[in-house]
Amino acid sequence: MRDVTLQKRIRAIRAKLQEKKGGCLVVTKPGNVTYVTGFTGDDSWAVITSRAIYLITDSRYSEQAESDCAGCRVIERKGSMAKEAARLLAGRRAAGRILVESTTSVAEFEALRKNVKQRIRAVSNIIESVRSIKDAGEVAAIRSAVRIAAKALERVRRQMRRGITENELAGALDFEIRRLGGQASFETIVAFGANASRPHHRCGNRKLRKNDTILIDFGVRYKGYCCDLTRCLVVGKTGSLYEKAYGAAKEAQAAAISRVRAGVKISEVDAAAKDVIRGYGLPVYGHGTGHGLGLEVHELPVVSASVKARLEAGQVVTIEPGVYIPGKLGVRIEDDIVVTETGCRVLSSYCGRHEG
Amino acid sequence: MRDVTLQKRIRAIRAKLQEKKGGCLVVTKPGNVTYVTGFTGDDSWAVITSRAIYLITDSRYSEQAESDCAGCRVIERKGSMAKEAARLLAGRRAAGRILVESTTSVAEFEALRKNVKQRIRAVSNIIESVRSIKDAGEVAAIRSAVRIAAKALERVRRQMRRGITENELAGALDFEIRRLGGQASFETIVAFGANASRPHHRCGNRKLRKNDTILIDFGVRYKGYCCDLTRCLVVGKTGSLYEKAYGAAKEAQAAAISRVRAGVKISEVDAAAKDVIRGYGLPVYGHGTGHGLGLEVHELPVVSASVKARLEAGQVVTIEPGVYIPGKLGVRIEDDIVVTETGCRVLSSYCGRHEG
Repeated sequence: MRDVTLQKRIRAIRAKLQEKKGGCLVVTKPGNVTYVTGFTGDDSWAVITSRAIYLITDSRYSEQAESDCAGCRVIERKGSMAKEAARLLAGRRAAGRILVESTTSVAEFEALRKNVKQRIRAVSNIIESVRSIKDAGEVAAIRSAVRIAAKALERVRRQMRRGITENELAGALDFEIRRLGGQASFETIVAFGANASRPHHRCGNRKLRKNDTILIDFGVRYKGYCCDLTRCLVVGKTGSLYEKAYGAAKEAQAAAISRVRAGVKISEVDAAAKDVIRGYGLPVYGHGTGHGLGLEVHELPVVSASVKARLEAGQVVTIEPGVYIPGKLGVRIEDDIVVTETGCRVLSSYCGRHEG
Repeated sequence: MRDVTLQKRIRAIRAKLQEKKGGCLVVTKPGNVTYVTGFTGDDSWAVITSRAIYLITDSRYSEQAESDCAGCRVIERKGSMAKEAARLLAGRRAAGRILVESTTSVAEFEALRKNVKQRIRAVSNIIESVRSIKDAGEVAAIRSAVRIAAKALERVRRQMRRGITENELAGALDFEIRRLGGQASFETIVAFGANASRPHHRCGNRKLRKNDTILIDFGVRYKGYCCDLTRCLVVGKTGSLYEKAYGAAKEAQAAAISRVRAGVKISEVDAAAKDVIRGYGLPVYGHGTGHGLGLEVHELPVVSASVKARLEAGQVVTIEPGVYIPGKLGVRIEDDIVVTETGCRVLSSYCGRHEG
């Protein structure tokens, strides 16, 4: 990561710390640790004080950390993470109240609290809200991930023949993603026929039949950044209910995307998609219409009915309405979109030819 | 899952709840939710009361939950997880103190605490300690995962030729695992040459050269259960330092395995391996000598110097000493072992022909 990028992030985070009257922030969520340090390993915490950024890691990662994290000081921990963080914070008592990410486990928070003398408090979404606005480099990385996803899907199309199992098709897709230099950003979902009515179906040994349908929900991680796409494909002929459901999902997605613009209420985007599904007399999906993505495949903002916030320029979100009829069918169409001041850019539109 | 298996687990957990003076337990850790309900989806909690087991999930999973979880009552949540759990607990006030897994986030614990009237407390390792003892069915599942791993590795051996990248080899291995009906249980590590000095190296585009070394740390999940293996392979000739390091790791592993038996101090097993490495004058690895595995790839017990506990019959652990010399080499040998009253059984010994 370029130093200037890191500095910009840290400045934005320190401004939020001041708002919350915090002197320093203990960062325990892996994606957030990566965001503020550049470190991509596991089991590490970061501590942001008013003067410096520290990465606390262990011996498995210390070699990697030294090369990943130019902008911060690497501490190889000896004892538990909480004890090492407390030791570090003991030397900066002047720095004021300690804020800890509220995603930290109760056990670790308590271990930290017992070992520091300052006031300490759990806080939500400090780094997450900064992270939700992507810079040009981050958008480019997500776009690269989308390109790999599109190419990988294209390469496995010829394998979508009768007899292949969900498991095998998912494996073939993951393999192509790897060959293209990426990695699956989550467990690839391949669902044939009625299996697709489970939005988070786990692949099994169901074989592809004549006149069958395929739902593929997959993502690529490339240079740390994730995309997340869902495509529905048909082998042979399909019935009118499926056609209706697919048409409704497609129209719902278009309606939601047409609302996306900085300043628009997120709940409006969600409602736009659901109104279309409802208008078709089809069951309205129970999940949200989308979510932010970036270093993780689920980030802020959540795109759902209960969210009060408005979209901001630079956010990257999925828009993924679906129709699910248990025992019969499932469709979902998911694309990745950058919010702009005047509307949006669909990063994955050129995967369109894979659809339906 | 068979009902009788589930009942046995719940009985053991309820006994531990009584020890801790708890009336019910809120289970938030995904592997633990699976263990007590059979449910394999995400984003779900379980609540164990003195009378029943509840699974709280959302609409994405409710269809799956009804079929997965014969032994428990499925609740499709409308509001947040904590609110739904609190609503459920409000009806069982007589059930006494609420215990919550201490791996729960501070945010969720607080949300729960605010919404219940009973006393509430975070507790560690209740289910984890029960889970650490595997029954015959669980050991059989891990053994099946090991078999798939061995077969997949065998199938990619011919691809270990000059020019293939770490990424490609990892992808080919994952693909074979999928074809055999399994899934990678964690992100496959393939490290060529000196890259192996990073115990958690992330695959890149480094190509395999003439007279090169390969470290593969990989696992398979099969029917929910994980194995975790590391093999070192040599292409062409290698140097004497590598041979020495490999020999030391091999001898260290044998020394540790020879100590494994129910009742033995875990720290002794760790020391046995490290003493061998030290005896060779090589740097002693900074990670533990092993860890339990089962539904997750890291479970209790931790096999390291600081652990006070003793091994128990039925535990399944990895034994994985290594030698790391930054910029030069890395070796690690990892097998999966069942602890018995009289010693142990190495589940992965028949993968031995892949070594060295």
